[in-house]
Parts: sequence; C-alpha cells; structure tokens
Amino acid sequence: MYKGLLFVVSGPSGAGKGTICRRLSEKLDIHLSVSMTTRAPRPGETEGESYYFTTEEAFKEELAKDGFLEYAQVYGNYYGTPKDKVKEQLDMGKDVVLEIDIQGAMQIRKNYPAGKFIFILPPSMAELRKRITGRGSETEESINLRMREALKEVAYIDKYDYCVVNGELDEAVNRVEAIITAEHSRVSENIYELIQQYKDEV
Amino acid sequence: MYKGLLFVVSGPSGAGKGTICRRLSEKLDIHLSVSMTTRAPRPGETEGESYYFTTEEAFKEELAKDGFLEYAQVYGNYYGTPKDKVKEQLDMGKDVVLEIDIQGAMQIRKNYPAGKFIFILPPSMAELRKRITGRGSETEESINLRMREALKEVAYIDKYDYCVVNGELDEAVNRVEAIITAEHSRVSENIYELIQQYKDEV
Repeated sequence: MYKGLLFVVSGPSGAGKGTICRRLSEKLDIHLSVSMTTRAPRPGETEGESYYFTTEEAFKEELAKDGFLEYAQVYGNYYGTPKDKVKEQLDMGKDVVLEIDIQGAMQIRKNYPAGKFIFILPPSMAELRKRITGRGSETEESINLRMREALKEVAYIDKYDYCVVNGELDEAVNRVEAIITAEHSRVSENIYELIQQYKDEV
Repeated sequence: MYKGLLFVVSGPSGAGKGTICRRLSEKLDIHLSVSMTTRAPRPGETEGESYYFTTEEAFKEELAKDGFLEYAQVYGNYYGTPKDKVKEQLDMGKDVVLEIDIQGAMQIRKNYPAGKFIFILPPSMAELRKRITGRGSETEESINLRMREALKEVAYIDKYDYCVVNGELDEAVNRVEAIITAEHSRVSENIYELIQQYKDEV
C-alpha cells in the first residue's frame, strides 16, 4: 500500500504558514499534525484538534521513550509532536502536513529526514513588519526583536527543500499543493509499486 | 535575472509524451525544443517549428563542435537537439520542454545534468499494446517487437527524477505542470535571488 509523505511547513512567525496549512487541509485529503502540550486548554480549544493535552509527568515519560519528532519548552510548558500519531497517518497512506517553527523543523529533519521541508517566506521584510505590527499586541521593541529573529531564521532556508513566498495567499497555497503533487510523482516514491505492476504484467 | 529550467519529457513510444508536451505548450509560457534534422521536409512541415532542416555536412560540422545536447542517426538521417537554441531560451528565463526517447534522454542527462527528467508511463502494458495496435499501421510482429522495446525502456526509469502515468490526459498534464511549479520552488533554484533580496532590505 502507498505510504503517505510528511510535509513540514515552516518559516518565520508572521509569514503565514498557519493560514496556508489550514487552507491546504480544506482543499486536500491530508492530515494536519496536532501537537501534544502540558499547557492548560484555553476556552474553545478541543482535545485532539487544537492539541493533545497532557500532564508534565506523562509528557516527560514520552520524551524518555524518544516519542517525539520534535519538542520544545516555552514559558514552562512543553510542546511536542508525537511520533506515533504521525506514523499512524503515514502508514494509512495519508499525507501529513506539520506546521512548525524553524527550531522544530531542524529537529524533525534529524529525526525524519524523509520529510519534505517547505519554507514559507513573507514577500518582503517590510511586509513582515507590517503583519507583525498589524496584530496590534506588540510594542515597538518587541516588534524589532521579532524582526531580528525573523532575519536570523531566514538564514536557515538552505536546510529546506522548497521555499514559497506568501504574497498572495491562493497562489502560495497552489504552490504548496503543486509541491505535494510533484513529490508524489518522484520516481523514488513510486519505483517499488511500478516494478511490482510491470512484473505482474509480463 | 531568472534562468529557465530544462524539462526532459521522455518514455516509451505510445506513452503519449508528444500529446502531453503539446498540451503543456498551450497552457504554459514554455518553449518546446525543436530538433535539427538532415531528413527532407514532409508536406506540411515548417522550418523552425517541426524541425530545423539542414544538410548532412552542416549537421556533422555542428556535431564536431559538440553542438548537440543529444543526437541520433535513424534510417540514414541525423536528428539532434541544438545546444545553442536551448541555451538561448533558458538564458531568457524561459523554461524549455524537450520531448525525447530514452536514448536521447540519457545523452542529455550526461550533457545537462541540471535538467529535470520526467518519465511518461502508459497506465499498463496492455493499454500500451492497444495504443500501438490502434495506430493500425503495424504488423503483429512489429507490435511485439515494440512491446519488448518498451519493457526494456521502462527499466531506465530509475535514471529519471519523476514519473507520470498517462492514463487520463488532463490529469497527466496537470501533474507535469505541478512538477514544473515545484521545481521553480526549490530552494536551490531561488537561494541566490533570495539572498540578494534580503541583503538589499537589511
């Protein structure tokens, strides 16, 4: 049976990777990876959809068993991508799309090098600043800090397979969709099935 | 300026690579590569569109100058893909799509490894036989010979980057289009431009 592919959609915060992933999941038969976290659920968040909510003890147990594709500790809370949940979908032949920051993507690259790594770029740094500012919740100082962070992050682009500039959303979504289609057309992804098929016929 | 990419569309005869390429050229702003030949023009063939028609002397002169991406001699006539014509289009930033048999593709792979190699497959060997038979012009013996040839050719698939099964034509054309879009989204194809852009902004 066909095995699914893992697409890691990453990039600086403000580039729009979350929106692109949501759009993809509406258009295509893919599974959006869900993180596990020790943080308490917020109003409106649902178990297994927003996050898998768990205790710190259970999280650390999973961590000890090498159970995460990547994990991070932020403000005292743990976040991680459970390996078994992703593997389950891939084994069923379903593609998994995983939205993650650059640090997380670098961990996944080490743990699952067969993943396809897509870097989402803002159309320009000026536009990124506008988007961060537009959220309205940040001071000038914190905006400058995030811009410097974003610049440092863009330097990781050469660790990725693909890059997509998110200027016009539909266009960016179509490009990621084309990347998914193309990766399924790789000879390396199909050679086993093809040999089987033609052997049966001869 | 952006440099075009060379897409080599290849596969056994009867797989439908010619039809796919014509459809692509109607949909996309690409250049379909035109071969040079020493064979005489047939009624309806036009210079520079069907072929570049030339003399054997001129062809051999080009050959001596290593002027072809690939060439072959068939029934006493020479056929070849002029390097300079392809290069001219790529330099203008235009993608070139080149339809060619497997032997030709293997030569191009050596002469232009940056090319993207796409193998067009019939949905099954039974369907391929039907297509070859459907042309009506061949004897049982020559059909069997071509089927054996096609099987030998499919074995070259691991020298290609992508494979596309041509069962439903529109679907196959869309897949090749997705491959073209995806290859333009490769980090390796964009890294130089990106560095320039972000350097200018900082």
